[in-house]
Amino acid sequence: MAKAPIDRTKILTELGVFGDFSVYKLRPEYGMLPAADRKAAAAEVLAVVEKHKDKVIVDAYLTRGFDAKSDYFLRVHAYDLAAAQAFLTDFRATKFGSYSDVTENLVGVTKALNYITKAKSETLNAGLFAATYSDPAPRFAIMIPVKKSAEWWNMTEPQRLKEIETHTAPTLQYLVNVKRKLYHSTGLSDTDFITYFETNDLGAFNNLLIALAQVPENKYHTRWGSPTVLGTIQSVEGVVNTLSNTNPAM
Amino acid sequence: MAKAPIDRTKILTELGVFGDFSVYKLRPEYGMLPAADRKAAAAEVLAVVEKHKDKVIVDAYLTRGFDAKSDYFLRVHAYDLAAAQAFLTDFRATKFGSYSDVTENLVGVTKALNYITKAKSETLNAGLFAATYSDPAPRFAIMIPVKKSAEWWNMTEPQRLKEIETHTAPTLQYLVNVKRKLYHSTGLSDTDFITYFETNDLGAFNNLLIALAQVPENKYHTRWGSPTVLGTIQSVEGVVNTLSNTNPAM
Amino acid sequence: MAKAPIDRTKILTELGVFGDFSVYKLRPEYGMLPAADRKAAAAEVLAVVEKHKDKVIVDAYLTRGFDAKSDYFLRVHAYDLAAAQAFLTDFRATKFGSYSDVTENLVGVTKALNYITKAKSETLNAGLFAATYSDPAPRFAIMIPVKKSAEWWNMTEPQRLKEIETHTAPTLQYLVNVKRKLYHSTGLSDTDFITYFETNDLGAFNNLLIALAQVPENKYHTRWGSPTVLGTIQSVEGVVNTLSNTNPAM
Amino acid sequence: MAKAPIDRTKILTELGVFGDFSVYKLRPEYGMLPAADRKAAAAEVLAVVEKHKDKVIVDAYLTRGFDAKSDYFLRVHAYDLAAAQAFLTDFRATKFGSYSDVTENLVGVTKALNYITKAKSETLNAGLFAATYSDPAPRFAIMIPVKKSAEWWNMTEPQRLKEIETHTAPTLQYLVNVKRKLYHSTGLSDTDFITYFETNDLGAFNNLLIALAQVPENKYHTRWGSPTVLGTIQSVEGVVNTLSNTNPAM
Amino acid sequence: MAKAPIDRTKILTELGVFGDFSVYKLRPEYGMLPAADRKAAAAEVLAVVEKHKDKVIVDAYLTRGFDAKSDYFLRVHAYDLAAAQAFLTDFRATKFGSYSDVTENLVGVTKALNYITKAKSETLNAGLFAATYSDPAPRFAIMIPVKKSAEWWNMTEPQRLKEIETHTAPTLQYLVNVKRKLYHSTGLSDTDFITYFETNDLGAFNNLLIALAQVPENKYHTRWGSPTVLGTIQSVEGVVNTLSNTNPAM
Repeated sequence: MAKAPIDRTKILTELGVFGDFSVYKLRPEYGMLPAADRKAAAAEVLAVVEKHKDKVIVDAYLTRGFDAKSDYFLRVHAYDLAAAQAFLTDFRATKFGSYSDVTENLVGVTKALNYITKAKSETLNAGLFAATYSDPAPRFAIMIPVKKSAEWWNMTEPQRLKEIETHTAPTLQYLVNVKRKLYHSTGLSDTDFITYFETNDLGAFNNLLIALAQVPENKYHTRWGSPTVLGTIQSVEGVVNTLSNTNPAM
Repeated sequence: MAKAPIDRTKILTELGVFGDFSVYKLRPEYGMLPAADRKAAAAEVLAVVEKHKDKVIVDAYLTRGFDAKSDYFLRVHAYDLAAAQAFLTDFRATKFGSYSDVTENLVGVTKALNYITKAKSETLNAGLFAATYSDPAPRFAIMIPVKKSAEWWNMTEPQRLKEIETHTAPTLQYLVNVKRKLYHSTGLSDTDFITYFETNDLGAFNNLLIALAQVPENKYHTRWGSPTVLGTIQSVEGVVNTLSNTNPAM
Repeated sequence: MAKAPIDRTKILTELGVFGDFSVYKLRPEYGMLPAADRKAAAAEVLAVVEKHKDKVIVDAYLTRGFDAKSDYFLRVHAYDLAAAQAFLTDFRATKFGSYSDVTENLVGVTKALNYITKAKSETLNAGLFAATYSDPAPRFAIMIPVKKSAEWWNMTEPQRLKEIETHTAPTLQYLVNVKRKLYHSTGLSDTDFITYFETNDLGAFNNLLIALAQVPENKYHTRWGSPTVLGTIQSVEGVVNTLSNTNPAM
Repeated sequence: MAKAPIDRTKILTELGVFGDFSVYKLRPEYGMLPAADRKAAAAEVLAVVEKHKDKVIVDAYLTRGFDAKSDYFLRVHAYDLAAAQAFLTDFRATKFGSYSDVTENLVGVTKALNYITKAKSETLNAGLFAATYSDPAPRFAIMIPVKKSAEWWNMTEPQRLKEIETHTAPTLQYLVNVKRKLYHSTGLSDTDFITYFETNDLGAFNNLLIALAQVPENKYHTRWGSPTVLGTIQSVEGVVNTLSNTNPAM
Repeated sequence: MAKAPIDRTKILTELGVFGDFSVYKLRPEYGMLPAADRKAAAAEVLAVVEKHKDKVIVDAYLTRGFDAKSDYFLRVHAYDLAAAQAFLTDFRATKFGSYSDVTENLVGVTKALNYITKAKSETLNAGLFAATYSDPAPRFAIMIPVKKSAEWWNMTEPQRLKEIETHTAPTLQYLVNVKRKLYHSTGLSDTDFITYFETNDLGAFNNLLIALAQVPENKYHTRWGSPTVLGTIQSVEGVVNTLSNTNPAM
């Protein structure tokens, strides 16, 4: 009986949705498996994605060559976090997944805007919605965990609003070439936020992150990165096949 | 000769009871064992639980897909800590246990309320007992170690009472959807406390932990998490079977 | 030719004696050796202890189930540190030792009381000798490294004396249920002290360590634990046999 | 069809070029492969370099004997970072690459001078261009990541300019014996900068780094090294052959 | 053709000489090699030492039983650092070296006295040369890396001189039982200095290090140890044979 897949656009914009980021390093033994096994790997992984398509959506990113501690990462969205676990458990039971070591795993949930709302900060809120991404389709994604100090959390709400306003203003100019998405993680993982970015212009992204470093909010970071995980945006099949080295010899 | 099992409700409410939290990562070689071995694994583990049922009770949690450093964790309660060791030693001698690497292990003991007692803080004490968990049965558990700075421990008792009162007030509203239990660990492990939570509502739990971040007590944390271990509450059999991939093929 | 064994009581009370604490994790491959090999392991280790009995004494502790990074630890006392190395080198050459990975190794030396002497602090000195351990034989031992900050070491001698007096006073009440021994390690290992405790009452021990956390001296700790290693006191044979899983099947 | 190789001099001087530093440790199993495999390794790696020569240039450095966490590192320059990933993915698929574990991987991009420009700091800018490297060809290269604190990034531009001027003045005298190159990494990796040096005079280099330690800018470093990776400058073939131990027996 | 070996006394006293400290952990698989292989190991290593004797001198130390992260370490002196790399690369290609994992590797260079010179600090300088080692030949060596804070390096030269004078005064009394040697490492490794000691009296050494902890200079240490590596001074042959367990059975 056919199951209706999750609506990607909807789940990516709704609140109360769980984002489960799992980062993997392929064990070297995988590359020594018979080529036939490695050629069959992508189909097996895709079957798992298909099996769970009514409960989760899965994005895949290739990080090999950019990050010492990973070769790829997955971003799974689900309305029920247990469904993300069910998918990831099945994924780890595939040949490809069983040769993958998890080096980072962070869970967060989407929530309504906290500070830059129409009510609290009207002009900046308008700025956030005035511009949209207009560059060529992003080829790169970056996942950066953020944890804030007790001093941050003990500020009053108006103080935090002021700092987030100062944080937001210089970022507006990058809305045209960097997409962003935020997940809240306090108590779910050892981080407060997972920040996720997509871009085709890594120079602009570098400038955006420098702008974020130059505001006082940065003084309240106890974790910003560690890891910073940069990858190319790919299909699940693309990631598995590339890391399976199943291309014809040069 | 039949041995009477420990009374679960009793040991979970008494003082002077040891809680032994051990967190495990299954080695990938386990998944490569013959299916017959993996199918027999749960029965072998259950026999160990049965053998020790007059001395310990055992709870199991699946963390795969939520945490990079673990696949599952066990919570063992015992009146004598040596009995918890005896159980865990036998557990590690099973096939499943012998392929499990311990990535964290914390020991604590239950003690009487320290601060929010009827005598010291009557109103908050009443609040603690005024509400009880009323959500559907919790599906998730979270284990978070807490260590406090020398500055905390060198405060006077009234100062610490005041901080714990400020800590307690905003948490009362979450009694209906988050269960909590506290273990004292100073000198037994490299932490001062093990905080343990059960919930069915991870959004509410995220809000509770943010509320705890926003009180001054947070400034005295030298460890809060590291690791934060989030899992689904399962039977021992369920955890072993899920990680044994012994389900029929898709 | 028979060699006279070291006098245990004497070496445990003399000054200028080296204490060598080595903490081990058994590799999982050990458990997969033929049962005959594992059954023979204890005898082989005991022969090494016997060989060195005129130079070192050896105590053994089982930590499995209490600590993620170890399964057991050894405490070796010797008048010449090279003799401890000779023993440990032979131990590592046994079957059991060769499957053991060292996860911590700290070396210290016993020295005369520094602060709470009869001359400098008469009342507290009397208190130290007024009470002795009167509980049932200790079943648990705890090893906790201590390192102090430059600020501590740069205090004047009278200032440090004052802090150690404040440290000592609340600990006197625990002399009846916690035994203690101190080793000096500055320059020998990455710690200043190794503190070693034996107790049968882990609740009392937890209270003692909280009392030590509540004095100003705690503000000068740069390491206190990391690791805290808690084990049950056992014979060498007991530790090897337990970890060898050579008991008859359940 | 022949592809034109990238112009080395050009790419090493242009802005907006990506530098991808990947640091490797060879697994010991590599040394146990048949000598024929190891003898063929360099040719296979060189074929990969040749395949990508129209998109990337590759420099190689031998670090064995200088650094615990690596045996060699590669510096890859590309106009498109995805091209560096494509090369490194192919490299990891070679026999030599498949036995190499990545222990550090940092990505940066070249940008125009920020502070010591002709407009902002004319005299120092002239000094930077007044002297050039005049020592024998460098035999050593050093890669040192730099990350700066929130306090640094929150300084005003004139304050940072002043600090960079103070940083630059004492370094001018080393232009004759130390070459330098800077990559910007904020948001791309867990560092703000990758500093890269070449020298034939390690004593002069040691003095240069001490001079940099002695200016106030050093107070704003949250990472300076960790790792400091020192290697000898070699050809790709030289690195592979040396680590392949394929030299005739002594 | 016979090559003249390096003059040991000369290279150990000259300036501008490189010291390369490499610390090793033997993989457990080494102990499982056939005894014949292990018996041949020392000769193979000695042949490498012989091959390079005109370029480097090599000292060896056994650390097993004293340090969790190592079994032995080597100290290599060379006029050209590339010669140390050539030796260590050949060493790692021996059977014994190929089963050794490098756990720390620090490179430094000898330089003239910086502070306690005859010109700057005449009395202390005289003190440094007034006493020499008079104990029995040292049996123990200790290697301790030192890194200093930005605050230290930003002090004026007279301030640093004052601190080093305060550091030097209490150490003079230990010249008779502790030998010392200093290497400068800023920019060459992740440390500023490598301090190396030899002694036969570990109690005196412990007191010396406590004396160094008690001067203000200690407040500027960001690394002092980590690792502290204590070993017995042995011949290269002795270290290899001891760790090869090739002694006749007990």
